[in-house]
Amino acid sequence: MKPILAEILAIGDELLIGQTLDTNSHWISGELDKAGIKTVRRTTVGDTEVEILTAFAEAEKRADIILITGGLGPTSDDLTKPCLAKYFNCEIKIHEEALAEVTEFFKSRGRELTETNRQQAALPVCCEKITNAIGTAPGMWFERNKKVFVSMPGVPHEMKRMMQETVIPKLRKTFALPAILHRIIRTAGIGESFLADKIAGWEKALPPTMKLAFLPGLGEVKLRLTAYGNSREQLYRETDEHIEQLRSLIGNFIYAFEDVELEQVIGQQLRERKLTLAIAESCTGGYLSHLITTIPGSSDYFMGSMIPYAYDIKMRQLGVKPETLERYGAVSEPTIIEMANIVRAKFNTDIGVATSGIAGPGGATPEKPVGTVWIAYSDKHQTVTRKLQLSKDRILNIKLASVAVLNLIRLSMPK
Amino acid sequence: MKPILAEILAIGDELLIGQTLDTNSHWISGELDKAGIKTVRRTTVGDTEVEILTAFAEAEKRADIILITGGLGPTSDDLTKPCLAKYFNCEIKIHEEALAEVTEFFKSRGRELTETNRQQAALPVCCEKITNAIGTAPGMWFERNKKVFVSMPGVPHEMKRMMQETVIPKLRKTFALPAILHRIIRTAGIGESFLADKIAGWEKALPPTMKLAFLPGLGEVKLRLTAYGNSREQLYRETDEHIEQLRSLIGNFIYAFEDVELEQVIGQQLRERKLTLAIAESCTGGYLSHLITTIPGSSDYFMGSMIPYAYDIKMRQLGVKPETLERYGAVSEPTIIEMANIVRAKFNTDIGVATSGIAGPGGATPEKPVGTVWIAYSDKHQTVTRKLQLSKDRILNIKLASVAVLNLIRLSMPK
Repeated sequence: MKPILAEILAIGDELLIGQTLDTNSHWISGELDKAGIKTVRRTTVGDTEVEILTAFAEAEKRADIILITGGLGPTSDDLTKPCLAKYFNCEIKIHEEALAEVTEFFKSRGRELTETNRQQAALPVCCEKITNAIGTAPGMWFERNKKVFVSMPGVPHEMKRMMQETVIPKLRKTFALPAILHRIIRTAGIGESFLADKIAGWEKALPPTMKLAFLPGLGEVKLRLTAYGNSREQLYRETDEHIEQLRSLIGNFIYAFEDVELEQVIGQQLRERKLTLAIAESCTGGYLSHLITTIPGSSDYFMGSMIPYAYDIKMRQLGVKPETLERYGAVSEPTIIEMANIVRAKFNTDIGVATSGIAGPGGATPEKPVGTVWIAYSDKHQTVTRKLQLSKDRILNIKLASVAVLNLIRLSMPK
Repeated sequence: MKPILAEILAIGDELLIGQTLDTNSHWISGELDKAGIKTVRRTTVGDTEVEILTAFAEAEKRADIILITGGLGPTSDDLTKPCLAKYFNCEIKIHEEALAEVTEFFKSRGRELTETNRQQAALPVCCEKITNAIGTAPGMWFERNKKVFVSMPGVPHEMKRMMQETVIPKLRKTFALPAILHRIIRTAGIGESFLADKIAGWEKALPPTMKLAFLPGLGEVKLRLTAYGNSREQLYRETDEHIEQLRSLIGNFIYAFEDVELEQVIGQQLRERKLTLAIAESCTGGYLSHLITTIPGSSDYFMGSMIPYAYDIKMRQLGVKPETLERYGAVSEPTIIEMANIVRAKFNTDIGVATSGIAGPGGATPEKPVGTVWIAYSDKHQTVTRKLQLSKDRILNIKLASVAVLNLIRLSMPK
């Protein structure tokens, strides 16, 4: 089967002067890849008619699908709509349904519809309107000679909703794309190359209709198993088998089979098991608590933290014994064990965790180079510690150590 | 004067499948804009010879300068170098100086030079080598018919260093660009539109050789005043005058005249004034402490934090009076004042700050909707509070409240 080709076109002067980072084209590339459509090129041009029209013509030669973002605002420097009308040689008229939608949008926010806003409901008559559920500029769908042009707003959340709800399903229908299924396997606690080694045999044995992608993140690796076929039900059954095998190979590293963050999974488990958590974090300086509290409702299981950044505060406020600090130092197993146990007792929680290390660039000694971090987990049954040797980069060390603690909580908490 | 035009070309399959976000093209756009070079287009293509060669030819028609990133790795799917050799019709040979550099690079890291690495020192004979000070793939500079092609690695920090140290200065010389001076004015505590109103008259009175850009960030706005002329010394004098006027208009909102973050400026001031800081943060959940501790050496002035997330912990651990909490609630001025004062006393610091609010989505009441946040600053001379009404978005509220506290520290700390 001939692959379906796409070009992504981003329009806006603000992109070309480096003022706005174009995350839209990146996100669209990923969505097209997941849908089995190959992106052959991405192009960015400014708000200039000749540049835009040239880009349309060039893209039409190369691709079956041209996805356009930006340039749909109500002001005169937004040229995408008039350019599309010119390119498809048709006039722009008020679209009654679009007008009703934009009127409703303003009404629901208690605002008056101005003439400028009203013009957002004017569309080239040769296009199909795409409803913008959360904004004022509708999208547009053009078809000519088996090629499709889609114009979407540059506002990321409006564009994403339009893509997911309307554009991708419509492209599937128009181009009779094969059924595709993506299975997500999220792992933590193992590096990309070790993981690749562990599952090399399994990956090799995958049928040609399945392919695996490694998507490494900070302290974790996401696997995406993509299967192509005729029906999603069959693909589910087929991939289930392979995922079962995978689970027997690397089960302990897997924390989710869907696109959720580790802090979300842990939060869910703590809530279900009615467990509470307290943190004593030193070298991570608040980032670990921040990860935990990004989750709405985390106050149900997270009671609080102590950040004893100064040596003195580790003793006076947290209560680590002076003898322990003097004898072993702040970055040591005995100290980290005390920290986790004390914070659990003080905050009266089921679980206490702690971090202490040399984030860098200062503070290193020959025995404890930058990147040396001790972490600990404590509950009424056990205390678990880990010594990490991370990087030379301060921010990276802060983030990697925090994720390592999340993973330690996941592996150690009572079932 | 005819503007000098550039096209930016990013090469790599990983970009077109949405696996790697292309931040290079964005950053280069900004650097070119600052140098007075106009980017007319940005293009991304995959690792395919015909696509790359087509993109070269198209770009050469449109632009004077073609800046290329990516595709310089040592493996066979990296095609930029052979494509450039083909395009400029010259052979690839080992470049002795480049070989010495890559040999030294490996030697200094105690690693052996493999044949694959050795090939990184092979360059098209018609190009000028650009030294890669922190990586193994050299850059390449081609000139033909008054057009310049520059190829750089896709690794961001290698590319940035090459741009700043070699490419931009060389472009300045080659194209006799006018002198340009950028002055940065960083403000916090005032929204973009209010700021724009306050300085509208000042902006209008700027000479045509100066232009102002508003670069809004989280809880702050960066202003960039760009001046064009013949000598940088003269531009300094001319802009100084306007910046003096600006200072008299919005002096209190300005926290720096260079590109530094607010947490860095505060850290610097605390260190210079030998002041210490402790934090009691509730709704910001660790993010405020994280901002403070991203700065190397922050342990000199930051003693630590308490994150009393649970109501109970606010009393039992931090020591807020039960009467205060019962009578006014956790999100109230009396509570926030106690929090800041107590943490300052407990941690024995010069300054104590505190946050308490409804980050959302839960926890709101009719009187205290999502986004209601109290912040406080306390030292031995004064206690200052602010009530903020932020957004409906949890993460945004956490970040905005944290930046607001940083700004409150800046405005309130003893001189």
